[in-house]
Amino acid sequence: MIKVGIVGSGRVAYHLAKGFLHQITDPEVQLAGVFARNASTLASFLPPNLIFENVSSFENVDVIIIAVSDDVIQEFSAALPFSGKLVAHTSGSTPLEALSNHNRKGVFYPLQTFSKEKNVIWQEVPIALEATLESDYITLQKIAATLSGNVLRLNSEQRVALHTAAVFVANFVNHMYVLGYEICQKNNMPFDLLKPLIHETAAKIALLSPKEAQTGPALRFDHKTIERHKELLHAFPEGLNVYTLITQSIQNIHSTAEYISRK
Amino acid sequence: MIKVGIVGSGRVAYHLAKGFLHQITDPEVQLAGVFARNASTLASFLPPNLIFENVSSFENVDVIIIAVSDDVIQEFSAALPFSGKLVAHTSGSTPLEALSNHNRKGVFYPLQTFSKEKNVIWQEVPIALEATLESDYITLQKIAATLSGNVLRLNSEQRVALHTAAVFVANFVNHMYVLGYEICQKNNMPFDLLKPLIHETAAKIALLSPKEAQTGPALRFDHKTIERHKELLHAFPEGLNVYTLITQSIQNIHSTAEYISRK
Repeated sequence: MIKVGIVGSGRVAYHLAKGFLHQITDPEVQLAGVFARNASTLASFLPPNLIFENVSSFENVDVIIIAVSDDVIQEFSAALPFSGKLVAHTSGSTPLEALSNHNRKGVFYPLQTFSKEKNVIWQEVPIALEATLESDYITLQKIAATLSGNVLRLNSEQRVALHTAAVFVANFVNHMYVLGYEICQKNNMPFDLLKPLIHETAAKIALLSPKEAQTGPALRFDHKTIERHKELLHAFPEGLNVYTLITQSIQNIHSTAEYISRK
Repeated sequence: MIKVGIVGSGRVAYHLAKGFLHQITDPEVQLAGVFARNASTLASFLPPNLIFENVSSFENVDVIIIAVSDDVIQEFSAALPFSGKLVAHTSGSTPLEALSNHNRKGVFYPLQTFSKEKNVIWQEVPIALEATLESDYITLQKIAATLSGNVLRLNSEQRVALHTAAVFVANFVNHMYVLGYEICQKNNMPFDLLKPLIHETAAKIALLSPKEAQTGPALRFDHKTIERHKELLHAFPEGLNVYTLITQSIQNIHSTAEYISRK
């Protein structure tokens, strides 16, 4: 039996707790309990006996997953009142070494954007693992496999790289949606008009490599259209600024020669 | 009966021809034929009698949709060897007025990213219409309704705005995928790892407004994580440049106060 304890009540802790509670893949892996200062959001699905009132309840747990903000991982792991246990954080950009030395160190990083409003299809979520001891890596692998079919080993540097790439394809992509929304608003059009395009742009990536999927005036070096767009963005300096830079960046990555050869 | 002629063999012409050929919504709307210098790609689905060998075949057509590159719309419409017909272009950023005066002017702009490799679900594609004459607008509306359940009227300025917003949520979003791909490549990780995240980021927009959906270190003003990412991007100046600007742009749009109030 591997007893899993979770710390936190944020989006990652919430979905990890829900995931481990409901998994039926491996009866040997069990959610022992969750500790959080603000446990109220967890009470919607966790039975009361799995909400721990203090950290000492982790005494009989085999793995503690601390799903807290990056900036308190170090402090929180140092304050744990026992030693020699396997403690894993869930951060993409925090090194394994940030964890306190008095427990065994691990990383359990699920690569997904979590919202409490939306269920997670855990089976598809990549989970990147790291551990100092090989035996601990095997333990993490065992518990990760109860949630996901996509478990992999990454070292701390690769994990930062993956997290950085994730910022581009999720946070920055969403910022493009924010700017598109603003343009619609300013021109009395519903943002809903863009939704089929948003959906299709993401769906295309299943078939084509991102470079093959690139289209648009920047790729075509279509200066006339670019100038029309910039003129329209005159009243929205933040949009104009991003438009200018990303157009330039697309042209830096794809040369004119490459575009002509694809035509 | 409304007979529709199409000019072009690019992605938009290809899918318009396929769409009109196969639509069963309105038997009164019919594809009369397609004219293109390079008609070979159309032969895969068009019967030979619907491939026109020269422009004069449009003589008996009611509407001509010229789905050609923006930069040849003016020239091509001026060269049409008849007058008084309804001629519509399909460009998001070209004004109605760019069409030649010797025919009646219209715009038929489908807002989607088209690939020949992928079928289009026309029913969901917004089609933005414009026409000088009200009777022509009604004709365009009638033929657009055979393809899509999402037909709307936009003037030339709104259409440029919609096209600009589309560049953000499609072309620029795809460029974020390109940069994410490069980061994975440089760190020996498969881009496939990012696909569930890409999918979920687009799917979230169905439930939350883009501002509500924003997450990540820029929004959190998490300088430590931002510094780790920038350090990693040191070997990839194009990525670093975009990272720095978009992080700043996210912080310009969302103030710290707003982030704290959402927490």
